[in-house]
Amino acid sequence: MAKLLDGKKISKDIKDELKSQIQDWVNEGHRVPSLQCIIVGNDPASHTYVRNKVLAAKYCGINAETIKFEDTITEEFLLNKIKELNEDDEVDGILIQLPVPDTMDERKICNAVSPFKDVDGFHIVNVGQLCLDMKTIVPATALGVIEMIKRSGIETHGRRAVVIGRSKNVGMPIAIMLHTDKKHESGLGMDATVTICHRYTPKEDLEFYCQNADIIVTATGIPSLVKANMVKPGATVIDVGITRITDAEGKTKLVGDVDYDEVVKVAGALTPVPGGVGPMTVAMLMHNTLQAAKNLSEQRIKIQ
Amino acid sequence: MAKLLDGKKISKDIKDELKSQIQDWVNEGHRVPSLQCIIVGNDPASHTYVRNKVLAAKYCGINAETIKFEDTITEEFLLNKIKELNEDDEVDGILIQLPVPDTMDERKICNAVSPFKDVDGFHIVNVGQLCLDMKTIVPATALGVIEMIKRSGIETHGRRAVVIGRSKNVGMPIAIMLHTDKKHESGLGMDATVTICHRYTPKEDLEFYCQNADIIVTATGIPSLVKANMVKPGATVIDVGITRITDAEGKTKLVGDVDYDEVVKVAGALTPVPGGVGPMTVAMLMHNTLQAAKNLSEQRIKIQ
Repeated sequence: MAKLLDGKKISKDIKDELKSQIQDWVNEGHRVPSLQCIIVGNDPASHTYVRNKVLAAKYCGINAETIKFEDTITEEFLLNKIKELNEDDEVDGILIQLPVPDTMDERKICNAVSPFKDVDGFHIVNVGQLCLDMKTIVPATALGVIEMIKRSGIETHGRRAVVIGRSKNVGMPIAIMLHTDKKHESGLGMDATVTICHRYTPKEDLEFYCQNADIIVTATGIPSLVKANMVKPGATVIDVGITRITDAEGKTKLVGDVDYDEVVKVAGALTPVPGGVGPMTVAMLMHNTLQAAKNLSEQRIKIQ
Repeated sequence: MAKLLDGKKISKDIKDELKSQIQDWVNEGHRVPSLQCIIVGNDPASHTYVRNKVLAAKYCGINAETIKFEDTITEEFLLNKIKELNEDDEVDGILIQLPVPDTMDERKICNAVSPFKDVDGFHIVNVGQLCLDMKTIVPATALGVIEMIKRSGIETHGRRAVVIGRSKNVGMPIAIMLHTDKKHESGLGMDATVTICHRYTPKEDLEFYCQNADIIVTATGIPSLVKANMVKPGATVIDVGITRITDAEGKTKLVGDVDYDEVVKVAGALTPVPGGVGPMTVAMLMHNTLQAAKNLSEQRIKIQ
């Protein structure tokens, strides 16, 4: 049976470390790190996500506040609010909970946040720095996957990795980080050989690449996409997918992309859903907030 | 025998098209596009590259000038010169021939060029936009490889591609473009399944991925790295490598990463070295210069 990669446990460790680091940071005379979470509209899932982020922030000793707007506000109004927070020296991290209403240009909103305060790592400058293996703020879910691999002692150097899903917030940054060169500024140096699969990868090719992989990271939202016959015995399987389904008895439950009950018998290590990557995302967001606080404090200006 | 992908011919076609487009552009009342090439120091290869770029520019109807500095200039001096060109409305494209002297921070120099005038596509903002599949200026060699694939009618949708080499100016942008989603802003949509191999990919894994690939792009500078037994019959092989070697008779010659004489018997399509990707780089730089001229003219401001 696969070793379970317990995201709850690992993320708890990370949050405890952050709590201690933030305590030290404040003891050194710095202000308590502050995170402002903007949420537009009344999507219940978005409100739950933001609530969990605020709770985690409080646990770590971050001063987190939620700013709620009706979905009737204009893009211009939101951009002005972001500008205000960018210019506020008391604010370290700014998070805009996605999705924003259809009346707004999501990319424009993401780029409006100062790259130094962009705890989601969605600003073009942060994406550019990530793809150049520079020090930057990395999207929290992608960073959570990498941190989980590192903390679980899973070897990546020279190993075969497959990333299923080419989304710009998850699949792409994971694929970039998995093949990083240690000589580059980020120092991450994971050095895996990486294959990026997506919706137009033929089914037999997906099977082929997965069957030959030491590490599979799947982020598609397709339940039971990764089956036991696609996993090499002993391989590591990281399941980023999370989908609410209704089972035969009419009960709803959360499932990942992996056919868990069967894959657990073959894989060497596997993340459960829920309780795998999910909690890592929130923990890494707190990591990013402390990093934003340090960035601002050091007034490090990379882009001139 | 493989079909030869004739970079000289394709790049000539592109330059002729550009010449005509630039003529139209000028006839519409716009200024002749202008390209400023900065070269620091006396590296003979760099001077040859810049000379070829200026010649190609003149052929296309671009007003190109070379600005030469001794390698004793300071980084601050160069940054000031770049700032001046950024602010000069008569300048569309700015190219800093790399490498710059060791006394300078190459990344800082690349980021100093306005993203709109950055015909090399090396600015962090352009890299970020590329990796997000947005409209942007793409590094010329990488764009040349993609253009060559497209113009040669090589199918990429759902095919298996391998990129050997993870450099940030060549391998990485090619890997990004080969797996683009057509729904995204760039509209490129090449939709290949892409494997990124590099120096820490074990030899047997490199063979394995190549043997199973429909398209191999190699950019390592290691002569004869890709041998006939690594190429699936009928596959496309694009050779970005270029290395000067001395043969048995003491003569020097340029070779690529591919064992050409043997691979040509197996591959379906193959680029020669020289005369393959090399001329494409220069042509796409001219493409980028016209794009810079249009960007500036339209005053398109993506980053606010």
